[in-house]
Amino acid sequence: MTHTTPLPDTRMRAAVLVEPGRIELQDRPVPRPDPGDVLIRVSSVGVCGSDTHYYRHGRIGDFVVTAPLVLGHEAAGTIVDVGAGVDPARVGQRVSIEPQRPDPDSEETRRGHYNLCPHMRFFATPPVDGALSDYVTIGAEFAHPIPDTMTDEAAALCEPLSVGIASIRKAGVDGRSRVLIAGAGPIGIVLTQVARAYGATDIIVSDPDAARRDRALSFGATEVLDPTAGPLPDLGVDAFIDASGAQSAVADGIRAVRPAGNVVLVGLGAENMELPVQVIQNRELVLTGVFRYANTWPTAIALVESGRVDLDAMVTARFPLESTAEALDADRTPGSVKTVVTVS
Amino acid sequence: MTHTTPLPDTRMRAAVLVEPGRIELQDRPVPRPDPGDVLIRVSSVGVCGSDTHYYRHGRIGDFVVTAPLVLGHEAAGTIVDVGAGVDPARVGQRVSIEPQRPDPDSEETRRGHYNLCPHMRFFATPPVDGALSDYVTIGAEFAHPIPDTMTDEAAALCEPLSVGIASIRKAGVDGRSRVLIAGAGPIGIVLTQVARAYGATDIIVSDPDAARRDRALSFGATEVLDPTAGPLPDLGVDAFIDASGAQSAVADGIRAVRPAGNVVLVGLGAENMELPVQVIQNRELVLTGVFRYANTWPTAIALVESGRVDLDAMVTARFPLESTAEALDADRTPGSVKTVVTVS
Amino acid sequence: MTHTTPLPDTRMRAAVLVEPGRIELQDRPVPRPDPGDVLIRVSSVGVCGSDTHYYRHGRIGDFVVTAPLVLGHEAAGTIVDVGAGVDPARVGQRVSIEPQRPDPDSEETRRGHYNLCPHMRFFATPPVDGALSDYVTIGAEFAHPIPDTMTDEAAALCEPLSVGIASIRKAGVDGRSRVLIAGAGPIGIVLTQVARAYGATDIIVSDPDAARRDRALSFGATEVLDPTAGPLPDLGVDAFIDASGAQSAVADGIRAVRPAGNVVLVGLGAENMELPVQVIQNRELVLTGVFRYANTWPTAIALVESGRVDLDAMVTARFPLESTAEALDADRTPGSVKTVVTVS
Amino acid sequence: MTHTTPLPDTRMRAAVLVEPGRIELQDRPVPRPDPGDVLIRVSSVGVCGSDTHYYRHGRIGDFVVTAPLVLGHEAAGTIVDVGAGVDPARVGQRVSIEPQRPDPDSEETRRGHYNLCPHMRFFATPPVDGALSDYVTIGAEFAHPIPDTMTDEAAALCEPLSVGIASIRKAGVDGRSRVLIAGAGPIGIVLTQVARAYGATDIIVSDPDAARRDRALSFGATEVLDPTAGPLPDLGVDAFIDASGAQSAVADGIRAVRPAGNVVLVGLGAENMELPVQVIQNRELVLTGVFRYANTWPTAIALVESGRVDLDAMVTARFPLESTAEALDADRTPGSVKTVVTVS
Repeated sequence: MTHTTPLPDTRMRAAVLVEPGRIELQDRPVPRPDPGDVLIRVSSVGVCGSDTHYYRHGRIGDFVVTAPLVLGHEAAGTIVDVGAGVDPARVGQRVSIEPQRPDPDSEETRRGHYNLCPHMRFFATPPVDGALSDYVTIGAEFAHPIPDTMTDEAAALCEPLSVGIASIRKAGVDGRSRVLIAGAGPIGIVLTQVARAYGATDIIVSDPDAARRDRALSFGATEVLDPTAGPLPDLGVDAFIDASGAQSAVADGIRAVRPAGNVVLVGLGAENMELPVQVIQNRELVLTGVFRYANTWPTAIALVESGRVDLDAMVTARFPLESTAEALDADRTPGSVKTVVTVS
Repeated sequence: MTHTTPLPDTRMRAAVLVEPGRIELQDRPVPRPDPGDVLIRVSSVGVCGSDTHYYRHGRIGDFVVTAPLVLGHEAAGTIVDVGAGVDPARVGQRVSIEPQRPDPDSEETRRGHYNLCPHMRFFATPPVDGALSDYVTIGAEFAHPIPDTMTDEAAALCEPLSVGIASIRKAGVDGRSRVLIAGAGPIGIVLTQVARAYGATDIIVSDPDAARRDRALSFGATEVLDPTAGPLPDLGVDAFIDASGAQSAVADGIRAVRPAGNVVLVGLGAENMELPVQVIQNRELVLTGVFRYANTWPTAIALVESGRVDLDAMVTARFPLESTAEALDADRTPGSVKTVVTVS
Repeated sequence: MTHTTPLPDTRMRAAVLVEPGRIELQDRPVPRPDPGDVLIRVSSVGVCGSDTHYYRHGRIGDFVVTAPLVLGHEAAGTIVDVGAGVDPARVGQRVSIEPQRPDPDSEETRRGHYNLCPHMRFFATPPVDGALSDYVTIGAEFAHPIPDTMTDEAAALCEPLSVGIASIRKAGVDGRSRVLIAGAGPIGIVLTQVARAYGATDIIVSDPDAARRDRALSFGATEVLDPTAGPLPDLGVDAFIDASGAQSAVADGIRAVRPAGNVVLVGLGAENMELPVQVIQNRELVLTGVFRYANTWPTAIALVESGRVDLDAMVTARFPLESTAEALDADRTPGSVKTVVTVS
Repeated sequence: MTHTTPLPDTRMRAAVLVEPGRIELQDRPVPRPDPGDVLIRVSSVGVCGSDTHYYRHGRIGDFVVTAPLVLGHEAAGTIVDVGAGVDPARVGQRVSIEPQRPDPDSEETRRGHYNLCPHMRFFATPPVDGALSDYVTIGAEFAHPIPDTMTDEAAALCEPLSVGIASIRKAGVDGRSRVLIAGAGPIGIVLTQVARAYGATDIIVSDPDAARRDRALSFGATEVLDPTAGPLPDLGVDAFIDASGAQSAVADGIRAVRPAGNVVLVGLGAENMELPVQVIQNRELVLTGVFRYANTWPTAIALVESGRVDLDAMVTARFPLESTAEALDADRTPGSVKTVVTVS
């Protein structure tokens, strides 16, 4: 498990968002791992829609980029050094990075949903730098060892997979569920795969784009719908998961759920949405949202390792770190699912 | 427990809504109890906002009064006859009526939420007649025996109490909860009392009317707020329960809930509402609605019997059956909480 | 879906347990369907360990056979007549029989666990006759239509599959669980298959018999253990499900569960068992039992239809109704998993 | 809130268990608070049955006292110094001590049940010293500020109260529950009070000692039973909580629970117990244990502050630190409920 690893460098490259639309490759000192942390040489970083949004608009809601920021929070790499208190035998381990640093003493962390910790420091969320650099540090327990059979790209994409796992859990999907998923983007594809792994019988994916619908079918959807083709039939699904962020999709999806069914809002859209409240009331639907994830990585790694979720097949483009700006725009290429920046 | 009871009459009075705004006292045959049913001589019927709404507007959402309808679904009385298969010893029992007839074979009933049964027949919901008449029938198991110490009025008001119980259960209130309740009408008052009985430590009631706020305090609220006095403070409550049906109250209430807290929508308002979806997402709030109740009557009776909920104190006006129209308008009287029609 | 069906006969055969160890083929009148019931011409009946136990010992715990009893509760067939209130179009439907008649008005039924109804009448449980006859009646909603692709034998075996589904639900199995199953008999095999369908990653089956361990592997176990080979390793599984009824297996299994994990006791063994209570306490394990099932048939049919559970492969012997006694003894044949009586 | 506090001393007294049956008052250096910790001048320490057990037997199950050990884990005091990273304004705060130090990075802690953390260091559990000394340190977030109205003794007894809260939560007690509690010792009394605060309607306490039964009534039991007077009636309670550790009480209690009800084992008894497994199975009871507590202190403080739980009334004896050995034996005094060691 432990490999010989060249000593880390003292300087490194970092792809820095210096203003909306402009990424600069900067030379920076390699960080030192604090007590309890590990230092990781980054191999692969997936590009998320939020990275692209920061890149183009300089903000997401209340989170505003006011100083140079390193983007990227879907990352994998190899441990090259450890801070005080961490087992040195971990040097050489290939890991998938869970990019969050919750406060262990907050009430939310203590209750088991550390993702909701009010003092969270999260990669690539102002003012915390992300992973698009040669090295990063993270808490030792948030660097999850991966099996030899897992690629670095799959390890990086355990992050969006974790969003999918958190969502499917909240949706209560089990070995017979009928599930409606709105949106066949990267998260929609991940949701489709996780729903299948959790035993869902019917996985209905709705997307206005025909190519994306086809893609959903190839990743396990049992049925696809074009939401622009007319009103959604009364599906009576057990759960509706929105990965579109579109108000019409959310409202239509809610109406497609059976009494006492679940609604999970994953896709980020408008701050406020007009929702069919009486449908929620009359059917006693349970609606909730997903904000990142907690305690998902072991599941993510197990799903990939056992072949039940295929992350490698989702990678449609690769760029070197020097081409981070292009990578951030690659979602405009037709057929794009997931872009990866290959750092080392 | 069994009293001698005069044989039921063959004719009876019924207060019938013949068109919006017009109640007629009609002479009708006393119904015969079907197999499994009991025949009840009605004593008290509480007036609900939905009765008043049908009376004034002839409809509630999709439910339209297209034929003469007997209103009233908060009712108590005495069993005077039983249908085939029902223990005749029940004649003479004083009962609180759970005014619903679910289909025992529907999937929803089988799963334990019979209130969501698609084939439900519910009192005073078109085309099913309600209780504002001398006699009604109901399934034997939906006629809940009450202790001698309980008044007929309290027995009738076990129905709105059941709405409160269903809501407090969904809100997850327990022995330390901080709860925000919007609206200090009859349901808000019931919610306040049930929250206290379930151990809530802080019960904050919001209402724009000062007299109603005072009333909430007298029924156990630990704090009251005037929502028109400025933005709600960031309360961080464990649960928000809306009994107002007002969009602004719902939106403000959602923002007052701590991460992973609960939102329960009881009050009936607009079909669609603009909700702060990102707050729900970022805090992973769990939002649901309440549609009537299931399996609440034993709890309701226990709460009243033990004195932890006081329903009698909520009755602010009484009318005879002949004055049903006045009773339906009594909510316009200042200080009105709950009006009861005394039938016999 | 509807086929022409010859009118039912007026007389039928029934395999009757007249005393322990003696089955008599009797001529009986075909029952008439009561209101709400359907009449089913039986095609296949699976033999359960409880049938064999009644056959050999005349009792199971407090249930004692004091009068002639028709055994068999795993059954499928075709609807040939309907009682009052049932859609006559159902005649001709092939169905899987859920062999229970709960009281719709009991508190347990209303809460959604009708299997715990104290007034339950269950097939082949004294004094209620079972399915080993040409015709049986059951409540219309307990006769579950099956797809054309499902065999009658698989339809009959939806009953033990339902036990497996109820167990896996209680065990909280989801898309990464590590599960330990004790016992590779018919229920153990069903549990293995359902655990896999619900996404379990590790399915460890323990059985002292090598051939049964091999069989478990062929049905999806990822690992097998011989409990007689030495103490169970500290597996740290998320859930342990006992399908053996053996005290040593139960005690060992409990010790193999991680903190806050689940223990589900399915196998029927001694009335009392010595359990490692301090392990349950120190790890806060959650232990429960399974008594039949509720709301499982739609899931059972979906699992079989989608190919995720293979019931046909479990059938190792078939007998005609005339050979019911032999069928009840077929579990003594090496390699026996599931015996089916082919009625028509 | 902040008071002037004399600087801590450099030496302190500690009551040390040097061998079974022998407590020595030793002079020790005052500990320094590590980063993230606070230093507390101890005021009151409650005596728990486990302290007495260590004192008399030198071990509890696998936990063996092999070196001198300071007992006491129910403690309160005043913060007199803070470690690095802790707000110095906390000096002077009166606090109730949650006597555990979980590893924030263990899987169990992350899932929200830090009490099950395998790396837990817990007061007065070998080899970790407890609170029977002038000063102790604890993680800042485990020193819970108390209101001015709360006594130091009540603050110390928030620890056993937390055991009660954890138990009542697991028992699912809500605003109508019928609860059976076996054992009217300190934990039984706490359970009685918490059950009442959570809304339980019937609180039935079973104890063979008449004086203890009377005491239970004075703390809120609605009914008491003498288990030696004959078999327990079929109570059909919603939950049974054992605080006796006696096998017969546990077995009888299980038989008293309604279908689908809960069983919670709090009292520590034998390592193995013979339990009525078929009752658990046939009724699908849910049985679990309580191992300490997690996330209970805010509830404990709220229950005491609001007067719904009275801890002061439970104190039946007080001793100075010098008389710790006598305090540890005070449970032998008739009428003893809770003994407190007054340290400063």
